[in-house]
Amino acid sequence: MNIMQKPIAESRSGTLGKKLYQPYIDAKWGLKNHWYPAFFSNEFAEGEFKATTICAEPILIRREDGKVYAVEDRCLHRGVKMSIKPHCFKKGTVTCWYHGFTYGLDDGQLKTIVAAPDDPLIGTVSIKVYPVAEKYGMIFVFVGDADYPTPPLEEDLPKPLSKDYRYYAPNLTDDNVINLGIRRPGDANWRLAVENGFDPGHVLIHMKSPYVYASNFKVQLGSKPISDRALRFFEEPNSPKGVMNVLGPDENGDVHYERVYENKELGLKSKGAIERPAPNTSMWLPGVLRVENFPKQGLNLYEWYVPTTEDKYEYWELISFPYSNEEEKAEAIDRFENYYKEAVFFGFNNDDLWARDAMQPFYENGVGFDEEKLGTMDAVIVNWRKLVSRHARGIQGPPKELGRRR
Amino acid sequence: MNIMQKPIAESRSGTLGKKLYQPYIDAKWGLKNHWYPAFFSNEFAEGEFKATTICAEPILIRREDGKVYAVEDRCLHRGVKMSIKPHCFKKGTVTCWYHGFTYGLDDGQLKTIVAAPDDPLIGTVSIKVYPVAEKYGMIFVFVGDADYPTPPLEEDLPKPLSKDYRYYAPNLTDDNVINLGIRRPGDANWRLAVENGFDPGHVLIHMKSPYVYASNFKVQLGSKPISDRALRFFEEPNSPKGVMNVLGPDENGDVHYERVYENKELGLKSKGAIERPAPNTSMWLPGVLRVENFPKQGLNLYEWYVPTTEDKYEYWELISFPYSNEEEKAEAIDRFENYYKEAVFFGFNNDDLWARDAMQPFYENGVGFDEEKLGTMDAVIVNWRKLVSRHARGIQGPPKELGRRR
Amino acid sequence: MNIMQKPIAESRSGTLGKKLYQPYIDAKWGLKNHWYPAFFSNEFAEGEFKATTICAEPILIRREDGKVYAVEDRCLHRGVKMSIKPHCFKKGTVTCWYHGFTYGLDDGQLKTIVAAPDDPLIGTVSIKVYPVAEKYGMIFVFVGDADYPTPPLEEDLPKPLSKDYRYYAPNLTDDNVINLGIRRPGDANWRLAVENGFDPGHVLIHMKSPYVYASNFKVQLGSKPISDRALRFFEEPNSPKGVMNVLGPDENGDVHYERVYENKELGLKSKGAIERPAPNTSMWLPGVLRVENFPKQGLNLYEWYVPTTEDKYEYWELISFPYSNEEEKAEAIDRFENYYKEAVFFGFNNDDLWARDAMQPFYENGVGFDEEKLGTMDAVIVNWRKLVSRHARGIQGPPKELGRRR
Repeated sequence: MNIMQKPIAESRSGTLGKKLYQPYIDAKWGLKNHWYPAFFSNEFAEGEFKATTICAEPILIRREDGKVYAVEDRCLHRGVKMSIKPHCFKKGTVTCWYHGFTYGLDDGQLKTIVAAPDDPLIGTVSIKVYPVAEKYGMIFVFVGDADYPTPPLEEDLPKPLSKDYRYYAPNLTDDNVINLGIRRPGDANWRLAVENGFDPGHVLIHMKSPYVYASNFKVQLGSKPISDRALRFFEEPNSPKGVMNVLGPDENGDVHYERVYENKELGLKSKGAIERPAPNTSMWLPGVLRVENFPKQGLNLYEWYVPTTEDKYEYWELISFPYSNEEEKAEAIDRFENYYKEAVFFGFNNDDLWARDAMQPFYENGVGFDEEKLGTMDAVIVNWRKLVSRHARGIQGPPKELGRRR
Repeated sequence: MNIMQKPIAESRSGTLGKKLYQPYIDAKWGLKNHWYPAFFSNEFAEGEFKATTICAEPILIRREDGKVYAVEDRCLHRGVKMSIKPHCFKKGTVTCWYHGFTYGLDDGQLKTIVAAPDDPLIGTVSIKVYPVAEKYGMIFVFVGDADYPTPPLEEDLPKPLSKDYRYYAPNLTDDNVINLGIRRPGDANWRLAVENGFDPGHVLIHMKSPYVYASNFKVQLGSKPISDRALRFFEEPNSPKGVMNVLGPDENGDVHYERVYENKELGLKSKGAIERPAPNTSMWLPGVLRVENFPKQGLNLYEWYVPTTEDKYEYWELISFPYSNEEEKAEAIDRFENYYKEAVFFGFNNDDLWARDAMQPFYENGVGFDEEKLGTMDAVIVNWRKLVSRHARGIQGPPKELGRRR
Repeated sequence: MNIMQKPIAESRSGTLGKKLYQPYIDAKWGLKNHWYPAFFSNEFAEGEFKATTICAEPILIRREDGKVYAVEDRCLHRGVKMSIKPHCFKKGTVTCWYHGFTYGLDDGQLKTIVAAPDDPLIGTVSIKVYPVAEKYGMIFVFVGDADYPTPPLEEDLPKPLSKDYRYYAPNLTDDNVINLGIRRPGDANWRLAVENGFDPGHVLIHMKSPYVYASNFKVQLGSKPISDRALRFFEEPNSPKGVMNVLGPDENGDVHYERVYENKELGLKSKGAIERPAPNTSMWLPGVLRVENFPKQGLNLYEWYVPTTEDKYEYWELISFPYSNEEEKAEAIDRFENYYKEAVFFGFNNDDLWARDAMQPFYENGVGFDEEKLGTMDAVIVNWRKLVSRHARGIQGPPKELGRRR
């Protein structure tokens, strides 16, 4: 087993390290040209309009004849949000409540103006249109440049676990899987949320979680990389880009992360009896976490940290439940709604919410990136920052409304 | 009928147009050297002090022996608002609650200091004094430079309709008229409020107003200029400066604005039966609207959008009711309080309040003026901006307290 | 009696004066290398953690085996406040709730990391440690540079009144004295709070206080310096630095401040019968007020205005009660809790709270220092500013988190 010297050394060298991930430091407003979840499918009835904000872009979404459309939620005319009172007077269009500017949902083009049907603007100007993919129980939106060729959604999701994998559990993209989850806002920059998500050193905050007591898991005090194979990188072309904490033993039974169960200096020891064999965690562009075999063997948990504005993100949590018939599906829903949602998403993950918010003041003016003191356990965070810097399809700039202020 | 090519073309040409109304773009804090309403007369009892803010200037107003005085609401000594706890120990003066600096209400001069009656500052320094005109049921204040010669109030009110005018309705300045209204704050820059006020294309927001149903008006979907006489300009010296939408037929029966009652593309048609013959609207410096023969034939409605700070304005709405005896006056008051106030000011105009607020984010950093896409229906807005740029007596700068921050 | 020409003249000369107190104008965030009260002793039980902010520095305080420790409340690792959920797993240490960074309370050194006990960071980095003095019923913290030699606490307290002094009343530092008080936040910069504290011209705000009626004090309308000995300066080395308003007659019976009881111009006269003989007030670095023989002969009142952030301060008020046995001590507590706290701190001093807040907008961007018009009564304020500029041990800069934003 080699000592993973390079990433660890770099992780402590703020100045050196930062040069290699300056694009990440600049990505306050998010990564552009990526797919983000906007809504759960079941939040949208036929004919409904809803608004959201992703990477500081206001987006209006509508389901019509089953299909979902997403357009810029900002009328070209006077810049108002159409979602305040969206009108649909004709299929395939949205009309702004203010002066009747009417846009095609599929191309964003100005089709007519209610009281000026012969205005020369008609047919010559457009609002932005967002590619939409409704899959896996969610509505995904591609937030990017108008001329950017849309990649498959699956390139922005965690690389599926192979069925050959010893600790395989169903992927969110698998057939006969139902993805059940929640989403809620958090008050931190999206990068802090991501970094907390798969940080192998932050377990301390979960030590006293009801779910830990209930499950009798033997939770480590934290984990630290002890080999240069502790991190596995996924960087093949046309494939999801991610970095994995190989927290459990690998295919050969080799161990690359030491799970620390005791700190003698402080007289601390982990409680619990059940050791989890393959608790690998991995983070994928543009900020999607997979926790393998959690909350229990055979189930994977996924999280997104979708940039809203510079200091807000949308926290998505879901679990992929396999089923082979309707009865099992109903059973999964029942178990999710009445157990996992409360115990794992609220009981356990709630502590992550405030932990992320707690970092925000230190990082919000960029000071944290200069002054933080990262340790050995942070190798994955440093390497994630570099991975993003290498593979992000673009760095989002500030929202249009801020103009010259930035 | 000529096509009104020039203003329409310019209205779409952001860059070209903007050069002609840069002063308007700079007028975030309002226009100075103009008259603004501060209070309704009946809000002030004898001896009362009240404070307001106009064009970001803090103003303290007092009625004494019937007469109304207005002075700067900022003590020279330590800059506090005297209105927090104003003292009047002697007629004609106001004493600051903090250290007893005492100013003349008529000249603003420091007359004495409570505990330092021989301080050399006395008689040598002054707070600003504002010319006041109490007329037409309102208290108007002239907000401007100390050395600016005060013009007559009537130059800052809409030019009265002539009694010869076919569709004459009583002016707010007429004899035997009672002006009844309300005022309330809005969360937008004053310019957005003004532009919404007489915008011939924003009718869509009122389509479903209870007052439209109640009155059975045949409300157009919007109106668009179709002749170069659609806009009438008032620019004579020593006279109110304004621009009018000639929405009804002119003196010769010529029509310059097309009232659009249908959009075939969208399958939309106006409802209602009663067509209003002379619904001309006009806007006057420093931001006063007159809607002729509204809410009904024979009554004019007026509105002010008084700048408070950069993102707040005071919305004034009033109707001028004629009367020939006390019984008719009482009847007007009864009708206003119990009908028009609810149906027109709340039921109809409430939609304008949120519409204005909706524009604010796009314009608050100046971006909207660069990015907006104005259409044919906006010719009057573009021309209003130019008119203001030609005739405003001054552009207000940021408030003193902001100092070097801007 | 000489006329105190120099300070009075300077007090009115903004431009000239400002050059002599520019360091004070720069001290928005407070004075550094000084002692400040953080908590009353009785707010802290054994084993408790509490957080505070002084001069914009986040400070975590803990009592352990009776002794009080103060360290930086910002984990080196990711900048979070440890006070959100402070852990003590081993005596003499505090462990951050997030990743288990564990610091020595006495030296701030990183002692261990819960899950990375062999991390190279350990032993090489430290958080800031604050000298603490628990005396006189309070916990004082020295907020300053790491290498600044800590002066005795008593150099940052008012110079004790000598027992020989004709109007001696017990000092807060005397034996057999119990200091009883309260603290509460105020919404103004600390300098405005200080200046209000000993301002001889602001009495007007207290004129109608219940305590004035209750005590039947003949309260002057204000006081103005009439001699060049009206202000007494304390500037000896290794001694408290302060300036005193000699409001009462001096040792020789000479009077240097005129107490103004009448303003003829306004027809105002003081009420009340009891004249207070020695009501001297003095202000000491870093912002500690002593009011002699107030709220009554034989008792001194003290106040601190501790900088929190640029627009907040902590307002401390206490009275030093002498006692010679436990019964008298209990009696003092009873009298304080049920009378002075209500009547003086709330009934009388509440008016000072809003008065200070009222100055904040004028001064918050520095405009007030340029535009204020100081009078004869303000000589002590101008001289306090100069005294601070001569003797402050350092000017605090903006907090780390603001980084390049300032």
